[in-house]
Amino acid sequence: MENQIVVLVVEDDQLVQSVIEVCLTDGGFEAIIASSGENAVGLLDAAEGKYRALVTDINFSSSELDGWDVARHAREIDPNFPVVYMSGRHADDWASRGVPNSIMLAKPFAPAQLVTAVSQLLNDATPAA
Amino acid sequence: MENQIVVLVVEDDQLVQSVIEVCLTDGGFEAIIASSGENAVGLLDAAEGKYRALVTDINFSSSELDGWDVARHAREIDPNFPVVYMSGRHADDWASRGVPNSIMLAKPFAPAQLVTAVSQLLNDATPAA
Amino acid sequence: MENQIVVLVVEDDQLVQSVIEVCLTDGGFEAIIASSGENAVGLLDAAEGKYRALVTDINFSSSELDGWDVARHAREIDPNFPVVYMSGRHADDWASRGVPNSIMLAKPFAPAQLVTAVSQLLNDATPAA
Amino acid sequence: MENQIVVLVVEDDQLVQSVIEVCLTDGGFEAIIASSGENAVGLLDAAEGKYRALVTDINFSSSELDGWDVARHAREIDPNFPVVYMSGRHADDWASRGVPNSIMLAKPFAPAQLVTAVSQLLNDATPAA
Amino acid sequence: MENQIVVLVVEDDQLVQSVIEVCLTDGGFEAIIASSGENAVGLLDAAEGKYRALVTDINFSSSELDGWDVARHAREIDPNFPVVYMSGRHADDWASRGVPNSIMLAKPFAPAQLVTAVSQLLNDATPAA
Amino acid sequence: MENQIVVLVVEDDQLVQSVIEVCLTDGGFEAIIASSGENAVGLLDAAEGKYRALVTDINFSSSELDGWDVARHAREIDPNFPVVYMSGRHADDWASRGVPNSIMLAKPFAPAQLVTAVSQLLNDATPAA
Repeated sequence: MENQIVVLVVEDDQLVQSVIEVCLTDGGFEAIIASSGENAVGLLDAAEGKYRALVTDINFSSSELDGWDVARHAREIDPNFPVVYMSGRHADDWASRGVPNSIMLAKPFAPAQLVTAVSQLLNDATPAA
Repeated sequence: MENQIVVLVVEDDQLVQSVIEVCLTDGGFEAIIASSGENAVGLLDAAEGKYRALVTDINFSSSELDGWDVARHAREIDPNFPVVYMSGRHADDWASRGVPNSIMLAKPFAPAQLVTAVSQLLNDATPAA
Repeated sequence: MENQIVVLVVEDDQLVQSVIEVCLTDGGFEAIIASSGENAVGLLDAAEGKYRALVTDINFSSSELDGWDVARHAREIDPNFPVVYMSGRHADDWASRGVPNSIMLAKPFAPAQLVTAVSQLLNDATPAA
Repeated sequence: MENQIVVLVVEDDQLVQSVIEVCLTDGGFEAIIASSGENAVGLLDAAEGKYRALVTDINFSSSELDGWDVARHAREIDPNFPVVYMSGRHADDWASRGVPNSIMLAKPFAPAQLVTAVSQLLNDATPAA
Repeated sequence: MENQIVVLVVEDDQLVQSVIEVCLTDGGFEAIIASSGENAVGLLDAAEGKYRALVTDINFSSSELDGWDVARHAREIDPNFPVVYMSGRHADDWASRGVPNSIMLAKPFAPAQLVTAVSQLLNDATPAA
Repeated sequence: MENQIVVLVVEDDQLVQSVIEVCLTDGGFEAIIASSGENAVGLLDAAEGKYRALVTDINFSSSELDGWDVARHAREIDPNFPVVYMSGRHADDWASRGVPNSIMLAKPFAPAQLVTAVSQLLNDATPAA
């Protein structure tokens, strides 16, 4: 169990970035932060399976691609990729814009909710692989 | 139980239209057929809750809107709307382009699969209403 | 497979009784009809495992016990007993008055929904026994 | 993420109260304690959406209302309200007295089970809202 | 939708064979019958994806391989293969000998239960492919 | 809540043993370690309900029984026993060799995944008992 489970976190608010990083690290995950949709898509394209899950906000200040786009891109690369969205105002759009078998965490949420969401999706995805 | 449960079916192949209509009628549903994405969106906008579920093909010969668009539109109106996609070539895109809690029936499929899919989504959606 | 799967149906409207009986018979089930809550509880108490599932309306004209009471009684006898409620006005009360792992069919519903609901609950319950 | 997720905990044993409070706080939740059914119902009625989940024991020493009543009351206010029951002797009654989509934690249970139960129900409830 | 969904049925009792064949045909499936474990394994090995689901009894009169072996073999070829077991005496062994994400139908069962079980597993399996 | 929830962990690598023990203890569970399949089966046979869940590796250096055997044995004693497998090379065999309603954690995994997996299975199993 020497290798880390790396989670790609897409979030442009530095405060929220560090809160999420602490939550995931406490759960034993490694978090890599992207601060825009374009940044995230670039990392996914170069990843070669490095990332095991995506945790993404919906809107980024300086980004044409939003969180819905990033998740869709991740699923084009791997149809079983675990996806967790986080949003305040956009939680209601999940039913029309989210991908299947994803989880929407409406902000605010407790740290345990994020760790449980990521763990649950990873545990469900494993055997199907 | 005088009222029918009306399912909106979006399909441009007349043969497939009638096969689906027979399946749904056998299950006790009423099927209303739209033959393009635009047609379907128009019916949904005017529906006032008339339709209880959507069964949609992905590509339509003379239509700018595809089945992914129609489903997204239906979910913008009602976030709990039951959605069943049917597709041959596009089944693999479901993980990136489908809406949450929907079902993809890869063509070919048996009639019982369609009736079970519609029934299951309706039965799950009821209590949340 | 000589033995029938017997479903206890609690419904006081004769027209609905016969619609449900036809649906269940078409699915290969045998339906026994009770027309009041008291009648249903009496049959369950004397049943010795005869019934495999309950399909119940909520209100009965001449009955002190309603469908919520009947389902609770069935679950006291067998905690895994499959329960399907049918209701028009009372569907919203399911979240507060229904039993766990039950299905609420909001009236009107299509025959296939009832058969799928009963089958699904029976298929889930089997291995746990 | 400045706001806390507040969980209403109904429990009359002070030792258990503090164990649960520690578990929930570790998971990043805020726990508000009620020590009787009447107390809990009063808090829920005055809450205006303040509480996001209910964690309740079944029997309270000086209370006419039990945990089953409190959960039913919470679901009358919000049909999607997450409910976790905790019980030693009464775990078997969950199948007949619990509300749909709730979780029964049979005592004793590990802290992680409580945090996972609350997180899971909150994560499932979010998108339906 | 010109192609049939072919279900491999493993059953050595001719009467039960024909009952199952009628059920599946009514649901729009095509049933191919094998009457021993060896026969079934031979058909699966030569199948090249012809079969889309397995419906199997547990014990066969003149067969060293039982239904548990056949299902395990089918899952070695395709880890997402839908599996339905049917059994009278052996239903209790499902928890220790069945494969994950399979359904056990305890005999006797109603025809609709079999059709629903096969449909449900196929509908769940489709998008994962 | 004076009693501990005891999890039987079957693992022959001492380093992994202690990592798992720390994870489970952090979640509030008590871990008892067995270092071979024979050892685990002996503990289960003598347990009289002491263990509430099984976490097992697949291969053990000096053991005729592997993790698949241990899980099957646990389910013969209690058909609802929560089972979590951990494996690197053997994760793909889960679909053909695992028991129903179990979870396969492909190594490497994060500590939170293990705690969530055990908690989830325990929470699901409780009410059915």
